[in-house]
Amino acid sequence: MDTATTARTALIGLDWGTTSLRAWLFDAQGAVLDTRASPLGIMRLPRPADLGGCDDAFQKLCADWLDAREVPVIAAGMVGSVQGWKEAPYVALPADPGPLARALVPVRSARGSVVHIMPGLIEQGALPNVMRGEETQVLGALVAHASLRRAPRVLLGLPGTHAKWVFVVEGRVERFLTFMTGEVFAALCEHTILGRTMQTGAQPQDEAFLRGVDTARRHGQAGLLATIFSTRTLGLTGQLAPAQQADYLSGLLIGHELMGLAAVLAGEDFKPSDWTPGLIGDAALCRRYRLALAHAQGLDAPVLEHSTEQGLFHIAREAGLLRAQPAGP
Amino acid sequence: MDTATTARTALIGLDWGTTSLRAWLFDAQGAVLDTRASPLGIMRLPRPADLGGCDDAFQKLCADWLDAREVPVIAAGMVGSVQGWKEAPYVALPADPGPLARALVPVRSARGSVVHIMPGLIEQGALPNVMRGEETQVLGALVAHASLRRAPRVLLGLPGTHAKWVFVVEGRVERFLTFMTGEVFAALCEHTILGRTMQTGAQPQDEAFLRGVDTARRHGQAGLLATIFSTRTLGLTGQLAPAQQADYLSGLLIGHELMGLAAVLAGEDFKPSDWTPGLIGDAALCRRYRLALAHAQGLDAPVLEHSTEQGLFHIAREAGLLRAQPAGP
Repeated sequence: MDTATTARTALIGLDWGTTSLRAWLFDAQGAVLDTRASPLGIMRLPRPADLGGCDDAFQKLCADWLDAREVPVIAAGMVGSVQGWKEAPYVALPADPGPLARALVPVRSARGSVVHIMPGLIEQGALPNVMRGEETQVLGALVAHASLRRAPRVLLGLPGTHAKWVFVVEGRVERFLTFMTGEVFAALCEHTILGRTMQTGAQPQDEAFLRGVDTARRHGQAGLLATIFSTRTLGLTGQLAPAQQADYLSGLLIGHELMGLAAVLAGEDFKPSDWTPGLIGDAALCRRYRLALAHAQGLDAPVLEHSTEQGLFHIAREAGLLRAQPAGP
Repeated sequence: MDTATTARTALIGLDWGTTSLRAWLFDAQGAVLDTRASPLGIMRLPRPADLGGCDDAFQKLCADWLDAREVPVIAAGMVGSVQGWKEAPYVALPADPGPLARALVPVRSARGSVVHIMPGLIEQGALPNVMRGEETQVLGALVAHASLRRAPRVLLGLPGTHAKWVFVVEGRVERFLTFMTGEVFAALCEHTILGRTMQTGAQPQDEAFLRGVDTARRHGQAGLLATIFSTRTLGLTGQLAPAQQADYLSGLLIGHELMGLAAVLAGEDFKPSDWTPGLIGDAALCRRYRLALAHAQGLDAPVLEHSTEQGLFHIAREAGLLRAQPAGP
C-alpha cells in the first residue's frame, strides 16, 4: 500500500465464521481499500480460541495493515460465540442497528489493538432461534439498498449451512427462522443411501433441481422424511439419472424450506408476495434459491452483494468507532 | 437336534437384510424348531454376493440343518435385490399373498438346495415406493392376528432405518409410504452440529421424546429443516440437557413422520383412527412409536411379534413348498 492509501485507512472489518475469516480495510467513507481471506475459521484454528488461537489468526491476517496505521477493528460472526474469541451475548429481538452498535464487546489483542465484537441475535420463545454474522449482513443490505429501506416489509433469505429467513418490518429485524438445509443436504449425500447412486455432474442440472422443488410443492404434505426417498426410487425405476440425483435432492430440500416459510407466513395471514424479497450469500447458492422462488412462488428475489462489508462499516460508524480516528491526511 | 426333531423339519426361512441374516427351522405346522442369526447381511458379506458371498453365508448358517434333512428354503429381504443373491423383481400393488407366492424366484445353492426368494413390492406413480422384506412381515402379521384379518382397514407401521407405513384394505396391501426416519436420525446425530452437544443417557428420556413429538405437532408447519434446529437452541438456552437432546430429536422426527402420515390420510378423507393400527419391528423402537401414537393421535397400536417368521412360513405354504416334502416320520 502506498503512503496516500495508508493515510486513508480508517477501519478493519472482520467476518469471522466457523470455517473462514474474511477481512476488509475501509476508508472513512466506507470505500474498500483492500480485502483478504483466510481459512482460519473459529473451528479451524491451529490453537484453540481460548489459548490465543484467535489472536494468532488475527495477527497473521491483519498485522501489516495495523503496523502501517493503527485503526479500529470490528468483527462479526462465530468469533463472538462461547467458542470464539470473547462471548458477545445475544441481543433479543426486535432489533435495529442502534442497540446492536451499543452492545459491541471489546477484546484487546496481544498487539494492543481493540477488536469490537458484534453480538448475535436471539429470538426467544417456544423454539428459540439464534444467529451470528447474518445480523450484520442484513443491516448491510438494508443500508446499501434504498429500495429495501423504503419497503415496509422485507424478507431476506441467507442460504447456507443453516439458512436464515429474516423478517424486517420498517427497518427493524422482527423475527427470523433457521432451516438446516445446507447441513442436512451434505449429511444426506455423504452419509445415507441417497448418496450411493449419485454422480456429481460438471453442470448444475436445473431441470432436475426444479423437479425436486415441484415434488416438495405437490407431495410435500407427507413431509421431507418421505419425499427424499424418491431420490432413490426415481433412480431405481430409471426416471432420474445418477448425475441428476444431487440436484433433485437439493431442489427437494430447498422446496421444503420455501414451503415451510410460506406456511409460517400464512399462519400470520401473510403471503410471500406481501414482502419485498432479497437474497444474501454465495452466488451459486443464491442462484438456486432465486430459481426456486421464481418457479414455486413467482417471486423475483435480487441478490444483494457486498452486504457483509456494508454492515460491518455501518455498525462501526453507528458505534462511533470512526470518530476516534483522525479525519485523514 | 435329536432324531425325532430332525424328522419333523419341513422348512427353512431366511430374513436376509442389508445388515443381518436370521434363520428359522420350521415343522410342517409352522412351529419353530430352531433359530439362528448372523451379522452377514447383504452389505456385510466377506465376498460379494455375485462371487459366492451369499452361498458361503447360507452354507455357514444352515449346512448342518440341511445335512440332517434336506428341506425347502424360503428367503425374504435384500437377498432378492440387484445387489443380492438373485434379483426377484418387484411385484406391483395392490398385492395379496397369492401373486407373491407365485412370484418366488428360485436359486440353486452350491450344495444343491433350492432357495426360493420373495419378491419385494413396488408402488408406481409420481413418487415410486419400494420394499423388500417388509411385505413378508405384513403378511405374517395378518396371518397371525385374527383381529387384523377381520378389520376392513389395517395400518401397519414398521419402524426402522427406512420406516414403512402399509395400508391394508380387506387383506390386500393397497399402498405404502417410506419415511427415512432412522437413517436421517443417525446422520443428524453423527454428522451435523446437533450431535456435538448430545450425551447418550443410559435410560430412555420419555419426557424429552414426547416434547419432541409435541414440537412437531405444534410447530411442524415450518417443516423438519426448521424444527430440528431447536435441538441446538433449546440446548444453548439451557432448556434441554445434553442427555435429553437425542431423545428430543428422535421424538421430533417420529412426530414429523406421524404428522406426514396423518396428512396423507387426511388428503384421502381418512383419519388415523379410521384404521386398525399395529407395529412390527425392534421392541425398543416399537415402544417409542407406540408412545408417540398414543400421545399425538390417541391410538393404541399393539406390537405384532413373530410377524417375520409367520410370513415366511405362510408364503412357503401358499407356494406349495411344503407339499414337496414327505409328511414326516
